Amino acid sequence: MKEIRGFIIDLDGTVYTGQHAIEGAVEAVKKLQSLHIPFVFLSNRGNYSREMCRAKLEQMGLSVAADQILLSSTVTARFLQEHYPQQAVWPFGDPGLEEELRSYGINVASAPELAQWLIITLHESLTYEQLNQAFRAVRHGAGIIATNEDKMFPTEAGDCIDVAGMIGAIVHATGVSVSHVMGKPSTLMAHAALSVLDLPAESCIVVGDSLTSDVGLGKRHGMTTALVLTGNATEQDVMSAELQPDYISENLLQLVDYYMAERDSRET
Amino acid sequence: MKEIRGFIIDLDGTVYTGQHAIEGAVEAVKKLQSLHIPFVFLSNRGNYSREMCRAKLEQMGLSVAADQILLSSTVTARFLQEHYPQQAVWPFGDPGLEEELRSYGINVASAPELAQWLIITLHESLTYEQLNQAFRAVRHGAGIIATNEDKMFPTEAGDCIDVAGMIGAIVHATGVSVSHVMGKPSTLMAHAALSVLDLPAESCIVVGDSLTSDVGLGKRHGMTTALVLTGNATEQDVMSAELQPDYISENLLQLVDYYMAERDSRET
Repeated sequence: MKEIRGFIIDLDGTVYTGQHAIEGAVEAVKKLQSLHIPFVFLSNRGNYSREMCRAKLEQMGLSVAADQILLSSTVTARFLQEHYPQQAVWPFGDPGLEEELRSYGINVASAPELAQWLIITLHESLTYEQLNQAFRAVRHGAGIIATNEDKMFPTEAGDCIDVAGMIGAIVHATGVSVSHVMGKPSTLMAHAALSVLDLPAESCIVVGDSLTSDVGLGKRHGMTTALVLTGNATEQDVMSAELQPDYISENLLQLVDYYMAERDSRET
Repeated sequence: MKEIRGFIIDLDGTVYTGQHAIEGAVEAVKKLQSLHIPFVFLSNRGNYSREMCRAKLEQMGLSVAADQILLSSTVTARFLQEHYPQQAVWPFGDPGLEEELRSYGINVASAPELAQWLIITLHESLTYEQLNQAFRAVRHGAGIIATNEDKMFPTEAGDCIDVAGMIGAIVHATGVSVSHVMGKPSTLMAHAALSVLDLPAESCIVVGDSLTSDVGLGKRHGMTTALVLTGNATEQDVMSAELQPDYISENLLQLVDYYMAERDSRET
């Protein structure tokens, strides 16, 4: 922990579950803020905009700048801005995706048949008509970009189907494969986080509840990794996992406290 | 045509498109009725019940018995009745599926987690919550049966995503494959039709707009086949197709007229 100068923190299952903050998480982030330790939230959520996410954290008592939040919708918008600035997209997902794309000036097509790219994310307000529009976009030649490819996410009411469901529907019915997946553990997400923190990978720790997305991202990009047991993964999962995190914590607060204790011992 | 004593007739794209009868189709069926030539409607629709379908045909001016209609939902219900009479199912599709299953006394589970089988069909009134329930059924151990696996169907408003979309969503998110597909060109559908007609395959002609489903079913089961150009397939498609129909007609009426002319010439 001695070399760590910045935190990359997952949101769902690490800071909150559904609409509820996870015990100690708000306190943990406030401790980082009070010590001016740089951090960025890095989430595979693609159906929110940064502004929606910022407002949600505010409601939980956490004041952060929208710039400290990177969602897979954000990284998708940046990717489009850089690589396909002239092309029109058709968003297939909850309204937060379109909001985020528009906030980066991405051109949203006026009809699915006119889009060069179909952007797929989680769609909790899905209708058949929207599914059909997405289908027609691809039938008329749009390529497919997925904000992420998570299969499920945990909620208080039980496990829920994630973006993989929306992807499977379109891919299976059209026979067209996904061209780009944006979400963790991708290099795009890792680089976006490092660029916000303005730190090299070896000075950063990634903290999250997913062995694949969070620990995976850290391992692939030379970061220190910490798994929290407040979401997806259990200790059982870790035992059978190929990717072993550097640290395992009950929750985010325990990890931050451990970091601060190490930091204090270094300073004294 | 000389040996033909019974007709197996597709519905969507052959008798009607959406809510509208195809030109000449009602007249064609009435001609068969007036001559007492046995026929059965055989459709891959799994989101209707026979009763719903009978009422739709009635509205178009065709009076047929529900027993003359075989849908993929009907054949699914029969399959369950024969092979899994004790098992509970969770229907994932428009309400017609559940209506058809219940009409055969199939046990519909009170919660997705309690189902042994998830039955997937077209779902034009899909919500995320229903998608999620289907997901949970499979996550809790239910096997997957699909009424059919058609990828799209034509409507007046354009091509629409079919059952393949709903299948893809569940299969991709759960990693569980489909155990049984009921619809045409399956042997289950062919046998169900022949049993209603009480005729051997070689005395029957199957008429439909799909090379895969209709011509495919006929070819696989020793029936005469006729393709109509009022739906899915075009003459262009036929030229590049592996399966060649015995007859190609502009529409159902043209085919029935040709059959009747042949029949008259045989009788004189």
